[in-house]
Amino acid sequence: EIRALLDELQPFDLGQIFFQLPEDRRGPFLSQLKNEEIAELLKDLEHHEQALVLDTLTPDRITGVFNVMKSDDVADLLGELEEEKVKAYLTAMEAGEANKAKALLHYSEDTAGGLMTQEFVAVYNTFTVQQVIDHLRKEAPTAETIYYVFVIDENSRLVGVVSLRELLIAKPDTRVEDIMFERVISVTVDTDQEEVARVLERYDFLALPVVDRERRLLGIVTVDDIVDVIYEEAHEDISRLAAVGAEDRSGMTSLWSVTRRRLPWLVMLLFIGMFTATILQNFERTIEQVTALTYFMPMIAGMTGNTGTQSLAMVIQGLTSGKISRETMWGMLRQEFLVSIIIGTTCSVLIAFMALLWRGDLVLGIVVGASLWMTLIVGTMAGSVIPLVLHVLKVDPTAASGPLITTLNDIFSITIYFTIASFFLNQLLA
Amino acid sequence: EIRALLDELQPFDLGQIFFQLPEDRRGPFLSQLKNEEIAELLKDLEHHEQALVLDTLTPDRITGVFNVMKSDDVADLLGELEEEKVKAYLTAMEAGEANKAKALLHYSEDTAGGLMTQEFVAVYNTFTVQQVIDHLRKEAPTAETIYYVFVIDENSRLVGVVSLRELLIAKPDTRVEDIMFERVISVTVDTDQEEVARVLERYDFLALPVVDRERRLLGIVTVDDIVDVIYEEAHEDISRLAAVGAEDRSGMTSLWSVTRRRLPWLVMLLFIGMFTATILQNFERTIEQVTALTYFMPMIAGMTGNTGTQSLAMVIQGLTSGKISRETMWGMLRQEFLVSIIIGTTCSVLIAFMALLWRGDLVLGIVVGASLWMTLIVGTMAGSVIPLVLHVLKVDPTAASGPLITTLNDIFSITIYFTIASFFLNQLLA
Ligand SMILES: [Mg+2]
Ligand SMILES: [Mg+2]
Ligand SMILES: [Mg+2]
Ligand SMILES: [Mg+2]
Ligand SMILES: [Mg+2]
Ligand SMILES: [Mg+2]
Ligand SMILES: [Mg+2]
Ligand SMILES: [Mg+2]
Ligand SMILES: [Mg+2]
Ligand SMILES: [Mg+2]
Ligand SMILES: [Mg+2]
Ligand SMILES: [Mg+2]
Ligand SMILES: [Mg+2]
Repeated sequence: EIRALLDELQPFDLGQIFFQLPEDRRGPFLSQLKNEEIAELLKDLEHHEQALVLDTLTPDRITGVFNVMKSDDVADLLGELEEEKVKAYLTAMEAGEANKAKALLHYSEDTAGGLMTQEFVAVYNTFTVQQVIDHLRKEAPTAETIYYVFVIDENSRLVGVVSLRELLIAKPDTRVEDIMFERVISVTVDTDQEEVARVLERYDFLALPVVDRERRLLGIVTVDDIVDVIYEEAHEDISRLAAVGAEDRSGMTSLWSVTRRRLPWLVMLLFIGMFTATILQNFERTIEQVTALTYFMPMIAGMTGNTGTQSLAMVIQGLTSGKISRETMWGMLRQEFLVSIIIGTTCSVLIAFMALLWRGDLVLGIVVGASLWMTLIVGTMAGSVIPLVLHVLKVDPTAASGPLITTLNDIFSITIYFTIASFFLNQLLA
Repeated sequence: EIRALLDELQPFDLGQIFFQLPEDRRGPFLSQLKNEEIAELLKDLEHHEQALVLDTLTPDRITGVFNVMKSDDVADLLGELEEEKVKAYLTAMEAGEANKAKALLHYSEDTAGGLMTQEFVAVYNTFTVQQVIDHLRKEAPTAETIYYVFVIDENSRLVGVVSLRELLIAKPDTRVEDIMFERVISVTVDTDQEEVARVLERYDFLALPVVDRERRLLGIVTVDDIVDVIYEEAHEDISRLAAVGAEDRSGMTSLWSVTRRRLPWLVMLLFIGMFTATILQNFERTIEQVTALTYFMPMIAGMTGNTGTQSLAMVIQGLTSGKISRETMWGMLRQEFLVSIIIGTTCSVLIAFMALLWRGDLVLGIVVGASLWMTLIVGTMAGSVIPLVLHVLKVDPTAASGPLITTLNDIFSITIYFTIASFFLNQLLA
């Protein structure tokens, strides 16, 4: 009767139960589960959680689990273990299963190759619909999905795709090549995972075939793994934008791993920030003579940072959504420039009036207003040009984090502000 | 032969062709397409693109398209049109189709109700596997998905779910209630779309059933729409974090719509930023006497903003991934506090030494170091406490954008810095 209960639970729920059990009851719990269930439970856990589950199992049981696990999940899991253990497991596994996993280990994690699984269903173009359905029945217990059937020719080249939905309504003696889609949308093993996700999103597919240069079918990427990719990439973008660094591969959020993600960035920004101090020292005489100038400094530096952050976010969003390409890049920069002029003009007129009203000093109002106008334009352009240049140089544009742009904009804005102020120094003193 | 070509194209590709054609050839192109193809082409376009397509069609054709369109897509589309047009189309549509769409119009866009479609396949628990498969064949041309079959009892209550994969390997005369999963994972109409996405991600499902309080099946949410939700929510988080506001519903990125998204935030931040100026004026005497204090002001304010941005990103990520709940919130705050002490101590020791070496002034080094230590702790806590309080108050925590946190941290850091400096004024002058 425990079995009947377990049959009704999903892998995620089994995982939840495992981690809520006291340690001494985890072993007995796993021994109630089938290898297939442990395989599914394992696949979406974080690395340190997977380690906890594996530690509860005997090597024999682990081998059994790996034999029934989808090859993409085996490869992901093995990719986290020490080389010796990997070799031991691959030797103990069934040869066919081990070879599938081994083939996947070569691909980089964030490419179609690193996401694909070989448990797809493929049939020859000469099959009839009835033959395909019979084949599907045989493959159903082990295939990753049976809802898409990929059609290959005698050279293993991908020539078509047909969905189970279409098979179900077709006449049983039709040849599959007569009902298949021939213009198959596919990706290659080295396609970046963000691109794979975007293709799948556009076409609303449940899986995408992965082919080599000769269009031989190597694997499929399924939508559940793409959902994970989209979450992961969004998480990464926010981390980078806020300069909190990449997450520990273990998924751990201990005090030390969190500090390690954040402190290096802050120390770097501290050193860059020291430039502002030396720049200000150069304007010592101006500052000494017109103390009121310093009152507006944080506001000008802050506003320049803010507009730069906005601009950076627009670029990151444009690149993520695929709206910015090499062709549209200049249009984007032109637009940012025009936006910065509108924003700069509005804000600088406002601040010039406020400064005039507050301090009763027209020249100060003009200096502050003119400075803000220039720094907002420079700040906006810094926030768009820097990430776009990184993108062209094939560096991840989020390497220009918000805090980095803000710190650079501190330097730009302070230089501009005090240069303009020094120029008007005699009028300010009058 | 054009038809044969069109048959091989996906809705996304048809959309691409439409927008690349000169305006006078768009009408003839659409007249080649079936209603079903136009429906699919329309559903994932941005609102202003949908308007362009609809303008190319006669009202009769539009009604025909709406009749075969999935109800979630009809509702989304009608939700963007003027009330009069909506009424006209609903009147012209087949009564059954119109009623389905009308029922969906009541739900808020970002809930399960706003995402669901009624084109699901449901069978009674008394059906045999063969009866279900026969029913699927009939539903295949119009259902959103035929890969999940939902099982209901005589009161329309959801009692189970079975996949086509399981149906295919089951014996044809088995009753569906003997092979179905009874512990169906479902959401209710008012479940927030982020929660719906997280449930689907955990269980790797292709669709989730949506039920009312009596567990009556109202619709299903499919994975293709959830993929869009995850992209949309990530886009929104980045927009909010960077204070660029929500995107125009039309999806337009014209100069004016972009400016409208960004300018209001900057004007608000400009006014808040003016506080720093009045605070600084209160420390006029201190600043006049020790000009060197101002040199470190941008660095201290900048670093406080940076650590606050990091902290904010950690909270947003924790909330998005579901790792932060009411129970774990205090642990998160405790961790942020400890992180801030480590970060504060490291950075302040570094800056105290730099200040000492550069200016040869031990007291200045101590004042700058001590100030940075305090402001980094305050800044980190501001970056975590503010969004968490908003979350508890059921306000979207990203309302505390990076620029807002940075601007508030400017105010905090300048107050702290000059208060400490004023306290040591005699020593600084010695
Ligand atoms: Mg396998
Ligand atoms: Mg992989
Ligand atoms: Mg990437
Ligand atoms: Mg889509
Ligand atoms: Mg997989
Ligand atoms: Mg996965
Ligand atoms: Mg990325
Ligand atoms: Mg319909
Ligand atoms: Mg909707
Ligand atoms: Mg939301
Ligand atoms: Mg998942
Ligand atoms: Mg839909
Ligand atoms: Mg959100």
